[in-house]
Amino acid sequence: MLETDTSILVDGQASDSIAVTDRALYYGDGLFETIAIRAGKPQLWQAHMARLQQGCARLGIPMPDQVILASEAGQLCAGQSQAVLKILISRGSGGRGYRAPSAPCPRRVLLRYPWPAQTDWWQSGAHLIHCQTPLGCNPALAGIKHLNRLEQVLGRNEWQDEGIHEGLMCDRDGYVIEGTMSNLFALRDGQWLTPDLSGCGVDGVMRQAMLSMCDEQGLACQIRPIRVSELAQMDELLICNSLIGLVPVRSLAGQSYPITQGQQLQQAMLSWLEQH
Amino acid sequence: MLETDTSILVDGQASDSIAVTDRALYYGDGLFETIAIRAGKPQLWQAHMARLQQGCARLGIPMPDQVILASEAGQLCAGQSQAVLKILISRGSGGRGYRAPSAPCPRRVLLRYPWPAQTDWWQSGAHLIHCQTPLGCNPALAGIKHLNRLEQVLGRNEWQDEGIHEGLMCDRDGYVIEGTMSNLFALRDGQWLTPDLSGCGVDGVMRQAMLSMCDEQGLACQIRPIRVSELAQMDELLICNSLIGLVPVRSLAGQSYPITQGQQLQQAMLSWLEQH
Repeated sequence: MLETDTSILVDGQASDSIAVTDRALYYGDGLFETIAIRAGKPQLWQAHMARLQQGCARLGIPMPDQVILASEAGQLCAGQSQAVLKILISRGSGGRGYRAPSAPCPRRVLLRYPWPAQTDWWQSGAHLIHCQTPLGCNPALAGIKHLNRLEQVLGRNEWQDEGIHEGLMCDRDGYVIEGTMSNLFALRDGQWLTPDLSGCGVDGVMRQAMLSMCDEQGLACQIRPIRVSELAQMDELLICNSLIGLVPVRSLAGQSYPITQGQQLQQAMLSWLEQH
Repeated sequence: MLETDTSILVDGQASDSIAVTDRALYYGDGLFETIAIRAGKPQLWQAHMARLQQGCARLGIPMPDQVILASEAGQLCAGQSQAVLKILISRGSGGRGYRAPSAPCPRRVLLRYPWPAQTDWWQSGAHLIHCQTPLGCNPALAGIKHLNRLEQVLGRNEWQDEGIHEGLMCDRDGYVIEGTMSNLFALRDGQWLTPDLSGCGVDGVMRQAMLSMCDEQGLACQIRPIRVSELAQMDELLICNSLIGLVPVRSLAGQSYPITQGQQLQQAMLSWLEQH
């Protein structure tokens, strides 16, 4: 059942199972981070920890000790030139129904996966479609990377064509929010735009890195609601996440886009990441 | 960690743990049912199975063999005069990220819990408040009892006062949808009303039983959107779920309500359940 290259720590102990009473299982009551391991180290570790902490605060889950998390992550990253680290924090077991225990004991699950196969398109550019599954809006859950991900599962399962790399998801008012597993940037008249995520969506660590890089390098980049109907008029599109980095979009729903500016930013991000 | 009276079957085997790769843990990728066990048998079994099947169809999870489910449920129910049965069906392990495996092997988890303590209010009536946490609307997920329940967790944790039994939750447009763990009925001018759940909420098995009973007994009962602001003008309120049955509401946000009609229906439901 487990891939042979996967290593797993549950509360610091090597294990391939978890208590069946865990609230992550019952309610998705927890958070996760997906982190690139490069040259034996987790990339953008501080940014991932900051988002995890923000998520814990929002859900009322005590943030696990970051020294312990770093130590366990280091254990899984050691000697890995390139791999994927997943950190899952649940509220743990207990409580009565939805009611959380008054003194929760969060559970830590760290998993290391092999680097994905078939990543040519990360370099050369992505082909996108529109998903039909909408995203529900809830400011109480927007931005954080919680474990309630059925919308993304339904969205991702709308296509099986291996030539399609990502699907864009909208809220019910017709605003594009994100891809099933990535954030979106769009270039219009020399300015990059990215959807406002105050109602729904995940505020990705690579999205934050893009915003920081643009800020540092004096590139115009604005967060605002973007109607899905505006996308046809955009000059270029980009998607991003912690594993794929910045990836120019070659096409969306059959419409081709140039990738000139996107490729420049993609290279710039590789340099920026080396310094951060 | 486990209550001593709990018995658990994972894929038919006694176990207190589950594979850490299960998609219920990662994404809440699954469904559940909470069933009253009375006199050694699961109550409203067919209705629970029908809703589970509907949920499986919606999420694209193969419905587990009902003969096997019934056999495992029977094993846990045997000799229990009164207890709680929880059935959790996940899509199982596997797939790449959000993408589901092409041939999923759903996992069955059946848990038996002791009957809840402190149930006096089920008989005498409930005191309610309004929750501030909104419910996000998504028709793709509305009605089914899936495992993405963070909204309910946040809602339930808005109060700790043991004298409050339930909190009502609204969508972002100001329509009341349900309680954190129950459905709502409201009496107005001799007609019972219950919120429309096409956008969000769980279509509870006891809600369905109430609708069936009203239909069979010629009681007026209508499904329609209900503004939370309408509740102050309602003649009576009821909440319901599979464990508590129908429970009259004594107060909502400090406003008292009569419980005359509610108590009659409560008794009628007890008789109705004996025949079903």
